[in-house]
Amino acid sequence: MSYLNETHDPALQSWVASANVADNGFPIQNLPFGVFRRTGGDEAFRPGVAIGDQILDLAALAALQPWTDAAGEALQACASEKLNGLMALGQTHWSALRLALSRALRTGSTMQSALEPLLTPMSQAQMSVPAHIGDYTDFYISLNHATAVGKQFRPDNPLLPNYKWVPIGYHGRASSIGVSGQQFRRPVGQTRPPEDGAQPGFGPCQRLDYEFELGIFVGKGNQQGDRIPVDESESHVFGLCILNDWSARDLQAWEYQPLGPFLAKNFASTISPWIVTLDALAPFRAAFERAATDPQPLPYLQAKNADSAAFDIDLETLLATERSRAQGVEPAVIARSNFKDAAFWNVGQLIAHHTVNGCNLAAGDLMGTGTLSGREAGQEGSLLEACQGGKKPVALPWGEERTFLEDNDEVILRARCSKPGYPTISLGECRGMVLPAKG
Amino acid sequence: MSYLNETHDPALQSWVASANVADNGFPIQNLPFGVFRRTGGDEAFRPGVAIGDQILDLAALAALQPWTDAAGEALQACASEKLNGLMALGQTHWSALRLALSRALRTGSTMQSALEPLLTPMSQAQMSVPAHIGDYTDFYISLNHATAVGKQFRPDNPLLPNYKWVPIGYHGRASSIGVSGQQFRRPVGQTRPPEDGAQPGFGPCQRLDYEFELGIFVGKGNQQGDRIPVDESESHVFGLCILNDWSARDLQAWEYQPLGPFLAKNFASTISPWIVTLDALAPFRAAFERAATDPQPLPYLQAKNADSAAFDIDLETLLATERSRAQGVEPAVIARSNFKDAAFWNVGQLIAHHTVNGCNLAAGDLMGTGTLSGREAGQEGSLLEACQGGKKPVALPWGEERTFLEDNDEVILRARCSKPGYPTISLGECRGMVLPAKG
Repeated sequence: MSYLNETHDPALQSWVASANVADNGFPIQNLPFGVFRRTGGDEAFRPGVAIGDQILDLAALAALQPWTDAAGEALQACASEKLNGLMALGQTHWSALRLALSRALRTGSTMQSALEPLLTPMSQAQMSVPAHIGDYTDFYISLNHATAVGKQFRPDNPLLPNYKWVPIGYHGRASSIGVSGQQFRRPVGQTRPPEDGAQPGFGPCQRLDYEFELGIFVGKGNQQGDRIPVDESESHVFGLCILNDWSARDLQAWEYQPLGPFLAKNFASTISPWIVTLDALAPFRAAFERAATDPQPLPYLQAKNADSAAFDIDLETLLATERSRAQGVEPAVIARSNFKDAAFWNVGQLIAHHTVNGCNLAAGDLMGTGTLSGREAGQEGSLLEACQGGKKPVALPWGEERTFLEDNDEVILRARCSKPGYPTISLGECRGMVLPAKG
Repeated sequence: MSYLNETHDPALQSWVASANVADNGFPIQNLPFGVFRRTGGDEAFRPGVAIGDQILDLAALAALQPWTDAAGEALQACASEKLNGLMALGQTHWSALRLALSRALRTGSTMQSALEPLLTPMSQAQMSVPAHIGDYTDFYISLNHATAVGKQFRPDNPLLPNYKWVPIGYHGRASSIGVSGQQFRRPVGQTRPPEDGAQPGFGPCQRLDYEFELGIFVGKGNQQGDRIPVDESESHVFGLCILNDWSARDLQAWEYQPLGPFLAKNFASTISPWIVTLDALAPFRAAFERAATDPQPLPYLQAKNADSAAFDIDLETLLATERSRAQGVEPAVIARSNFKDAAFWNVGQLIAHHTVNGCNLAAGDLMGTGTLSGREAGQEGSLLEACQGGKKPVALPWGEERTFLEDNDEVILRARCSKPGYPTISLGECRGMVLPAKG
């Protein structure tokens, strides 16, 4: 079997035994980056890399100064509470560090005894948002989602004329982004009045929803005024995570014209703790295809790598409720889809578009893909789509049903890549829970 | 004449002589905060307070530890490259520092000889963005502007039904905010095709505009999930500056549906370097009035201080061009208006609205008011309004005319408060220049 470089050799095994368990998701071929500390401790958060069910402390490893050259420089940038320093170094450094970590963690490595004391079990770790997020942008790259939601907000005009030309995006709120496990109060706000001119409604959101997105962490940025060409744009991406863009549909419907969503989104957004690099995802690249009837993108959005610009990542949404937890029932799978089937624009195009006007990106910036929905029933990336705007409740196996989220509901988003002959690469899990509105 | 407290006594004079010159704008009654360093030096930026044509170095003053209690704590927070630490302390500390600075800088102060070496002439200083801006929000509070622009984007439906109920806002880009003197490349991007389905245009923006806004710097923030009640909200505001929200109208018209402006705005925004505190603006408070035919706001937006929730601030827009500079002609005034006449929502309402859903604000966050336009001709806050969407060019006294901005045009925004018997309080100047698009 051929592979891209030695870090992708499917036969590689780690001296961390749990990394070799089938489908554990964090094999030595993955090596995602996050920020953690021991639960209950008062030590500072620090960067780590996931290996099996363990986390290797990169700040502590940096103190040992095991490497020189690019890998060593990249490691020194991990002597920090966030990953921004590492992110800013760029692709060459990321790949060098990945290779050095792969060699250090593999079976037979002479570094095993030095590294064993630097492991923390994931079960004893608390995770944090892995980077200082300077700016957060949310895109809207799923044609299926745009069409389905468009139908509900604008029945006569679901897909606007710009959709197939412009990777539609808008700025979101960085301050309210939390890491998996985030709990937040149901937002309160204004809702559309029964008729124009009447007093709007006011109170806790009645149509609270999740949105399954992937998050794209920017690595190396660009100077203001410069653009990042589409053929270089992927090298500016540090990696991907899962993102839940919680949405208050009733607040959104009333506030969003003419300047876009605001309070309907900015109360909370949740990301998974591990950033899986594009290096780790390389074996799951796929052709990026548009329908023959769709227009070709403008030249600044045409990359040479279209035959491999998509990523084959399975997405799975689960829901747990107060009742399911009380009954000891497992969370229910309510949707399954795949990134490559859901995306009308690819990662490189988003970076090229974002900077075509000279807008400056910085290490640690986060971009959401927008809700990722497949074409078929059961592939929806939000309840709004699954319940057809509230008309068709989603049945849960323990006897409840949902149109929108109720208090104490927990949404669990999972993403992973798998194919025969290669270890499963997990993006981990993004959990978040709705608490009752503040009284 | 009565005054609010001793810092507002109009008879106060400073031992910095230039602060006592009539209409100099930075008298001892102003004391705005900024961040500066000596031009050409390689020292770090540090906080300073403007007094006359001088800047008092607050980081150096902090090293002298002249005060204890709240003023001393506030001063110690200025031993930093940005104002975020001071901002986070809250109103009590800001007022204490203002009082201590007022006493130290006034004629007869025993601190004069200690402070004189800590002055830098403004003419020898380079200014910087005064805070780390975590999140930037842009509002849309001018009914006149919303109506005038709405007419151009939606002739049949200029003012949407939510406008008089919801303080419309959206998130903007923090990374591209620069300080007065900013120069930026004309943005490039897509424009609406001649007909739906045809290929969009692509190239340098042809309808580049300025927007005269005020910027509101958040001081003390709130915890995620908590709201800031409208009657407390002004105490979370550190102060105001001038903001130019540069806008690419042709890019905006094509991209903004359904999620709002994006590349049309995020290439650059410019702020004035001095933040004038609400304390300094207190003598210029005015009644905040709505027309009798307008609805009363919902209870969460009804503040008890409506009789003083507006600020009487004169706004003036000037334009200089390559030709005017070559001819040695002064920049031309192209519009004049006033904050209190232009605003349909007040500062406190914006903070209360932004947090009603639990969204967390942080020290250093910036909010734009949105374009501030008066009702009459000559009071427009943008060229789009002044030239009626390109139909009626604005004549310049040196023989040129403008519909939108041309390369090397410089826009100069000024704001100040004046009334009989009180020294003029200036918000300073916000200058920015358009460079040609990158080839």
